[in-house]
Amino acid sequence: MSKKPLILITNDDGVTAPGIRTLIEVMKGLGEVVVVAPDSPQSGMGHAVTLNKPLRLDELDIYPGIRAFQCNGTPVDCVKLAVDIVLDRKPDLLVSGINHGSNSSINVIYSGTMSAAVEGAIEGISSIGFSLLDYSYKANFAPLVPFVRQIAKEVLEKKLPAGTLLNVNFPKVENQKEIKGVKVCRQALAKWKENFVERTDPNGRQYFWMTGHFINNDKGEDTDEWALEHGYVSVVPVQFDLTDHHQIPFLNSWDFHVQ
Amino acid sequence: MSKKPLILITNDDGVTAPGIRTLIEVMKGLGEVVVVAPDSPQSGMGHAVTLNKPLRLDELDIYPGIRAFQCNGTPVDCVKLAVDIVLDRKPDLLVSGINHGSNSSINVIYSGTMSAAVEGAIEGISSIGFSLLDYSYKANFAPLVPFVRQIAKEVLEKKLPAGTLLNVNFPKVENQKEIKGVKVCRQALAKWKENFVERTDPNGRQYFWMTGHFINNDKGEDTDEWALEHGYVSVVPVQFDLTDHHQIPFLNSWDFHVQ
Repeated sequence: MSKKPLILITNDDGVTAPGIRTLIEVMKGLGEVVVVAPDSPQSGMGHAVTLNKPLRLDELDIYPGIRAFQCNGTPVDCVKLAVDIVLDRKPDLLVSGINHGSNSSINVIYSGTMSAAVEGAIEGISSIGFSLLDYSYKANFAPLVPFVRQIAKEVLEKKLPAGTLLNVNFPKVENQKEIKGVKVCRQALAKWKENFVERTDPNGRQYFWMTGHFINNDKGEDTDEWALEHGYVSVVPVQFDLTDHHQIPFLNSWDFHVQ
Repeated sequence: MSKKPLILITNDDGVTAPGIRTLIEVMKGLGEVVVVAPDSPQSGMGHAVTLNKPLRLDELDIYPGIRAFQCNGTPVDCVKLAVDIVLDRKPDLLVSGINHGSNSSINVIYSGTMSAAVEGAIEGISSIGFSLLDYSYKANFAPLVPFVRQIAKEVLEKKLPAGTLLNVNFPKVENQKEIKGVKVCRQALAKWKENFVERTDPNGRQYFWMTGHFINNDKGEDTDEWALEHGYVSVVPVQFDLTDHHQIPFLNSWDFHVQ
């Protein structure tokens, strides 16, 4: 194989976010890079797709030597447009992120970053979502670089099985030495407890802002939450077959008969 | 228990859609019903949540004797607002739909209807998403009624295990007799093949409409697609732990060491 691997990069924080810039810098050393990412922040968009409005796709020249496009849709739209319109062959790797903020545990379900990676896997592409436990625009991505490179290299070399992608989260650190290593984990069974903030607009109408706090009642030491709390990078294999296969026998004992 | 079960109803087609009206009619016979649903169609919204704009929640009087609210957010927002703001106790059952259109197979991931049910399960509520394989506004929901009632009754009686919800899809039929029965299934491993339609707007700028067709290469006779094609109602147990547990040993053989 003399051909360089083709690497598709996307995210949910928008095409100019520092996180995606870090990812572009790393991936340039591993293959031919194409960027298709949202033109504005799309955090919390989950696996949303845009069916009821026109999608725009504009080529940018902000990354020298890199084909980069911005799209007015969701992260999943970006992947679909990349595969169907932008690229003439299937990428060898899709990387999404690096997200400004955690996508560990249940966040995998709400995350635009992770949904883009899930969409990549549905398309049959080896896909990874990367996230850093720091919501700040000025988050420090430098310590993550060697890990991002190594994980991507392993995926390019070993390939992920069909139907599996990776959810990689990094603890917030000042320098690389603080990271204790990489742990393969399961998703912690945690959730958000909402706390809507109620306000009144200048016209006297009530409105709400969604806020909340994260509750982790999962005490397992094999979870992503445990790894991150203890200074490790967490790697969770993720699947998009949502069938709870173990419950099929139980449901087969139910009475579904109607008159 | 003399207290009637509390049943939360939502959907993604909007609070006035015929599908949700059918669900309200059936659930009125099984418990105390509260409706919190989007004020406009939210198909394809997946598990999106609204973090960057204010949420509105308005009580309606369109369903006599029923507490009903419309929200300007996504289906998942509706569930979160219902649990945190509207209801003073946890519902015994959440039902979402009846969706105008299929949510079988991979559609479970894109569907606002199903994501509302997933959110219910995350909140610890026994949850069911119902969908009919007919996108029409005038879809014929009448033949489904006895099945919807029986499945909901079974869930109220038997309870779903923590972390499991149901994805129920109905074939399009003219009358109840055409339905051969109910099959417990796994999600077929199928996908959408996109085909973006390219157009030019009056200002000369290119835009795209997302279209596509469904490809099912899964020949299994234990799938939801098989059941629906053969005239059965499909019931798939769905989980929100996305960990691909079987791949953990494989990933543990990888080299994650960095310098």
